[in-house]
Amino acid sequence: MSLLVVGSVAFDSIETPFGKAERVLGGSATFFMYAASYFTKQRLVGIVGADFPREILSELQERGVDTSGLTIDPKGKTFHWTGRYEGDMNAAQTLGVSLNVLGTYKAKVPESFRDSEYVFLANDHPQTQLDVLASVKGEPFCVADTRDFWIVEQPKLLAELLKKVDGLVLNEHEARLLTGEKNLVKAGAGILKQGPDFVVLKKGEHGALLFCSEGIYAVPACPLEVVRDPTGAGDAFAGGLMGYLASTGKRSLEAVRRGITYGTVTASVAVEDFSVDAV
Amino acid sequence: MSLLVVGSVAFDSIETPFGKAERVLGGSATFFMYAASYFTKQRLVGIVGADFPREILSELQERGVDTSGLTIDPKGKTFHWTGRYEGDMNAAQTLGVSLNVLGTYKAKVPESFRDSEYVFLANDHPQTQLDVLASVKGEPFCVADTRDFWIVEQPKLLAELLKKVDGLVLNEHEARLLTGEKNLVKAGAGILKQGPDFVVLKKGEHGALLFCSEGIYAVPACPLEVVRDPTGAGDAFAGGLMGYLASTGKRSLEAVRRGITYGTVTASVAVEDFSVDAV
Repeated sequence: MSLLVVGSVAFDSIETPFGKAERVLGGSATFFMYAASYFTKQRLVGIVGADFPREILSELQERGVDTSGLTIDPKGKTFHWTGRYEGDMNAAQTLGVSLNVLGTYKAKVPESFRDSEYVFLANDHPQTQLDVLASVKGEPFCVADTRDFWIVEQPKLLAELLKKVDGLVLNEHEARLLTGEKNLVKAGAGILKQGPDFVVLKKGEHGALLFCSEGIYAVPACPLEVVRDPTGAGDAFAGGLMGYLASTGKRSLEAVRRGITYGTVTASVAVEDFSVDAV
Repeated sequence: MSLLVVGSVAFDSIETPFGKAERVLGGSATFFMYAASYFTKQRLVGIVGADFPREILSELQERGVDTSGLTIDPKGKTFHWTGRYEGDMNAAQTLGVSLNVLGTYKAKVPESFRDSEYVFLANDHPQTQLDVLASVKGEPFCVADTRDFWIVEQPKLLAELLKKVDGLVLNEHEARLLTGEKNLVKAGAGILKQGPDFVVLKKGEHGALLFCSEGIYAVPACPLEVVRDPTGAGDAFAGGLMGYLASTGKRSLEAVRRGITYGTVTASVAVEDFSVDAV
């Protein structure tokens, strides 16, 4: 089945207690695609600048990604995020954001991608996420991500999006922010009431909780000896989940349960090294 | 099979964001026994003062506990711990400790209990734990708990104990302290090298990790809407584990894996209310 991912392709400069990486491949769509590529082909919608290496494009294509929906802005530079992890590495500290080509870009799904049956909406302005989803024909199985900024700044649009997606993936902090509930079980149940069929609450090294009409399903993370860089773990998780679902053509809650187990594995691999080096 | 527990029976005064409890039943052995009582009969070794209510003794007996190893000091008062939980409730703040009868007590296993086949050594001075274990005949299946104080103050005796027990249960903080490893997977593996056949690393609301020769087994905690008082969660966990094992007569790692799932459930129940009110 066809899997569409709409998100960022970027450069990251990262420092963790275990090393440094300068201007390496990053971005939500990137981590998603590398993880999902173990399961299925994909279609990418996003933007990069003229500075984006052709070799990476080739590698994505070799991994089964149709990059015809990736705009290459000849006059612009690729989005660049600079961040640092300290202590328990559970939260990134953003040191710098150069939006570059992402600053004025609004994702648009090319005609040839509009029959996609599975859609992952990486973190973006909820209006863009709504527009993208509306442009896909039929009834795609759609999972969205979001972040604290949109929860605070665009609550109405986000509420609209939640009514239209099948699933939402978010972290503990975002779940608490979205519902005002400190207890995660109450927060997960609260989000479920806002529309989606399921909610995946990501807890980093502590695994994930799946909330759905059938109850709560808790899955631990893979215990790792080495965590060098947690960047992209959430998107790699979504990639494992959606890649599995798209590869099987399933949409049932039972399949989602199995999918989050795959997501747990792909996320675990992603954090073992910088960028997509371990994937 | 006969299950012996050696630990404290106490009064607790506790404050959490969800309420207050004054001079309620507490103690490591208590939480252990209430949890294990769902599975099997038990033998208790410990001490209380003249102020300890007869009704509680009767209740323990009704739950299948042989209290003939419980010393009642007619001149002393029962051990009393005062503590508070704040924020995420993962760590207790000790506000007061009145050792009372526990101050001079050294646990001694009565002759009639020395044929016990399963032994749980709750947190205590490692020398006492060693002496208790040495006094039990044959080859009992023994699991011990410890705490940061003994890890720092009695490393040699603790190392000796680790060579003699089948399993050790401890929390994240203690595992890191015992091994000097920040990464929990390395910490678990490090403790395993010190002697025990298995190590259970308790992570509170995030579940537990079992380390053994067969690998690592991760189990999430039961997702709870209500956590009123985390006191005794670790001992309730051990009670579920040991109660299950003793009730089946099994000692295999496969049985331990199943046992920690039961421990996860009994710990989850324990934290839903103050003292043993939910158990």
